[in-house]
Amino acid sequence: MAEKIKTAITPTRAENYPEWYQQVIKAADLAEQSPVRGCMVIKPWGYALWENIQRVLDGMFKATGHRNAYFPLFIPLSFMEKEAAHVEGFAKECAVVTHHRLEAGPDGKLIPTGELEEPLVVRPTSETIIGASYSKWVQSYRDLPILINQWANIVRWEMRTRMFLRTTEFLWQEGHTAHATEQEAREETARMLRVYADFAEQFMAMPVICGEKTANERFPGAVTTYCIEAMMQDRKALQSGTSHFLGQNFAKASDIKFLDAAGQTVFAWTTSWGVSTRLIGGLIMTHGDDDGLILPPRLAPAQVVILPVLHKEESRAEVLAYCHKLAAELREVQYDGRPLGVELDVSEGRERNWTWVKKGVPLRVEVGPRDLAADSVFVARRDRGAKDKFGQKRAEFVAGVVGLLGEIQAGLLERAKSFRAANTVRIDSKDEFYSFFTPKNAENPEIHGGFALCHWNGEGAVEEQVKNDLNVTIRCIPLDGPEEEGRCVITGQPSRRRVIFGKSY
Amino acid sequence: MAEKIKTAITPTRAENYPEWYQQVIKAADLAEQSPVRGCMVIKPWGYALWENIQRVLDGMFKATGHRNAYFPLFIPLSFMEKEAAHVEGFAKECAVVTHHRLEAGPDGKLIPTGELEEPLVVRPTSETIIGASYSKWVQSYRDLPILINQWANIVRWEMRTRMFLRTTEFLWQEGHTAHATEQEAREETARMLRVYADFAEQFMAMPVICGEKTANERFPGAVTTYCIEAMMQDRKALQSGTSHFLGQNFAKASDIKFLDAAGQTVFAWTTSWGVSTRLIGGLIMTHGDDDGLILPPRLAPAQVVILPVLHKEESRAEVLAYCHKLAAELREVQYDGRPLGVELDVSEGRERNWTWVKKGVPLRVEVGPRDLAADSVFVARRDRGAKDKFGQKRAEFVAGVVGLLGEIQAGLLERAKSFRAANTVRIDSKDEFYSFFTPKNAENPEIHGGFALCHWNGEGAVEEQVKNDLNVTIRCIPLDGPEEEGRCVITGQPSRRRVIFGKSY
Repeated sequence: MAEKIKTAITPTRAENYPEWYQQVIKAADLAEQSPVRGCMVIKPWGYALWENIQRVLDGMFKATGHRNAYFPLFIPLSFMEKEAAHVEGFAKECAVVTHHRLEAGPDGKLIPTGELEEPLVVRPTSETIIGASYSKWVQSYRDLPILINQWANIVRWEMRTRMFLRTTEFLWQEGHTAHATEQEAREETARMLRVYADFAEQFMAMPVICGEKTANERFPGAVTTYCIEAMMQDRKALQSGTSHFLGQNFAKASDIKFLDAAGQTVFAWTTSWGVSTRLIGGLIMTHGDDDGLILPPRLAPAQVVILPVLHKEESRAEVLAYCHKLAAELREVQYDGRPLGVELDVSEGRERNWTWVKKGVPLRVEVGPRDLAADSVFVARRDRGAKDKFGQKRAEFVAGVVGLLGEIQAGLLERAKSFRAANTVRIDSKDEFYSFFTPKNAENPEIHGGFALCHWNGEGAVEEQVKNDLNVTIRCIPLDGPEEEGRCVITGQPSRRRVIFGKSY
Repeated sequence: MAEKIKTAITPTRAENYPEWYQQVIKAADLAEQSPVRGCMVIKPWGYALWENIQRVLDGMFKATGHRNAYFPLFIPLSFMEKEAAHVEGFAKECAVVTHHRLEAGPDGKLIPTGELEEPLVVRPTSETIIGASYSKWVQSYRDLPILINQWANIVRWEMRTRMFLRTTEFLWQEGHTAHATEQEAREETARMLRVYADFAEQFMAMPVICGEKTANERFPGAVTTYCIEAMMQDRKALQSGTSHFLGQNFAKASDIKFLDAAGQTVFAWTTSWGVSTRLIGGLIMTHGDDDGLILPPRLAPAQVVILPVLHKEESRAEVLAYCHKLAAELREVQYDGRPLGVELDVSEGRERNWTWVKKGVPLRVEVGPRDLAADSVFVARRDRGAKDKFGQKRAEFVAGVVGLLGEIQAGLLERAKSFRAANTVRIDSKDEFYSFFTPKNAENPEIHGGFALCHWNGEGAVEEQVKNDLNVTIRCIPLDGPEEEGRCVITGQPSRRRVIFGKSY
């Protein structure tokens, strides 16, 4: 029997994937459960990741003509009632504010008092409250388009929560736009889906499939919902971002209408699109290994950590000075339009190296007394084994660091693409379909086949069936999928294109 | 009788200051009332201002060793009960979530259902919920200090609201730190007060007085509250930021304790400090004039707006091309470490120039057909009269624009300092004190004397008296005020230093 390799995270992915996920979050110090049911505390290392996601996406939104604004946290109950499908979709998970004071009760404990005439819902999404503003702002076609984004916290009362993936409160951005024509609104929906896909691939190094959701999986109130879907290392899909063409549904509900160029009063066409702190869950599960988090360099809070070897008292000051100089030199390097992020860890615990492995920093640089003499450093790449290090002249390392980070970034994307390709198959028989989604390994029941590209007859009944039997859903109808003649994998009825079936978060 | 000068804002400051304030916000398109009681919608121009405030402050926080994190929006009722003074201070203004679902009632209207076992308060501030985390994070003196900041939305159920100054929901940052010693915590409190004062003066061009609050005006649960106080143009004070030394009060309430170097279990010392979207109200009321907003260049969403004169069809294309080139050239200019913000407004309404005056952009640049030939531009400074323009060679303007903005920034601070100096007096008699705070002009009852530097006997009863009689409070005990022998302006009792009395927002 082969000796078991010691890993920094226990259990490993193969042993227990969901528990591995929680342990990576803990080991990287990204977040923790809060005492408030279903809410998490995002700790500094996790929040720094979110700040980087925000910074990059915000730049992409502004480059596509959007501006930020801020709308109220609370939505009057009567607003929620305006769009029937919308309220149907969110009613079961709304936190409701009913009182506006606290008073000491007979036993000295606080009790809510000052009941509100109209209860307020804590926003589960902001279409209705933003619609109320847009209906005032839009009078003429000259007032359109409105291209606004909001960074905000959202509350959806979830029964089963998992950090970053599904929490009662989460952070997100929500774009809300209004247009004079259907075509413009459809173009906007497509444009923002493209922005999300570019961000996922270029920055998160997370390959995604752009597709349309089936009617069953649509955003409540949308005409069409598009999504980016990524494959995690347990071969489940993560819906990572959505862009909705809302038609005139919300314009009618919120009375967003205008005089068009011909002098007719018509309703506007609206869109909404969002990504959330869920992306951090996707990043963890796309790249992490059995030693913890692996950060794509372009989003890492720090690209390099310097670890001076300070055991020997006589060389201590010299090594430290050398490392400070190296840190300063590296911080002069421009990476992705900003100074390189460099941490210098002078702590001396035995676990120091592993701490940074688990936190996922792309490059670890060791400097000891002997390296000083040679003016060289020892470099470890987080995308390789923890003990795989190489020596390099300091000047060469500094000159080459941007190239090295580019190589790591590209490598992570390639690795994830290969993984997805290896676990995506075309399936044309029902037996094979059922077998594909049946776990092979009793010890780790989560692991199954992956993504199945199959023909589908377009009916919700089929979706119901595979959901009930296998907990499998149609993740999306890929936008770049070719038209081809085929037969529905479940019913044998004719179909003209393949969709992606998968298990999902 | 002198002809009345036409102003862009009606009424003028002298006519009705509170209404002028609302009209400036409307004219600059900064924000508007939302349909949700007491909550505002922050519109793109207002939010861009907040983004700049965030960006600069965030950099200052990070430069002083702080990192960002995020804690839950909801606070369990039992947490609020832990610190007696704290709950006393906030109980009357807490929005309370009591249910987590909506259901259609008998009449089809939605009603809250799914009652929570323990109601949740929407955070009015986060000491108690953050304290719960810190008590887990801190075990040993090696875990200290904890230096964390959070950008978040806050809810305080206010009965009378005014946009930016006092709203039910507002945006803010709250720093929360924990330290091993009292001295360190006191130093932190002072450091962050200094950061706020520097930000106010260097970026907002808003002079502030750093001081300590009296016991009456302290943050609920604090040992000492420090503040920055600014004088608005109606001579009222605006408390613009606070920094609290919390002693061990919250550490005891939240059980934040640790083993010190001597092996003793002791409580930590904590601080908290915050500024909010209220700063935008301060900025409006410090610099705005009867033509609207005046933005300090360092925080303006755009420093320059280019206004091409496009009346003549034959020169239209040429003028436009020239302006695009000028915009590109200006965007190459580095201002405060970033590219200069430049708007190019090609709309042709008659109100175009006034739109940008009201929005407060520091420099307006007109380019018409005749300017083209001379390769020159017409420049108007927002800190001068709307018709006060000067011609300048394009290249000279571009080369000198950073200097010009620096001059405007410095000038705004000087003007505000002079205004404050002109309306701050030392008063040593009770009669004079009462007269100073009695409005002189029946038509504009808000306008009174300003700040009064007076001796005070240190007793709350005096504060009560002047509050009841004049609606005047002690704004702060200035930190840089000299010790001097004196007698309390109200009671004649001995006093060793002057405090600042004023009316306030």
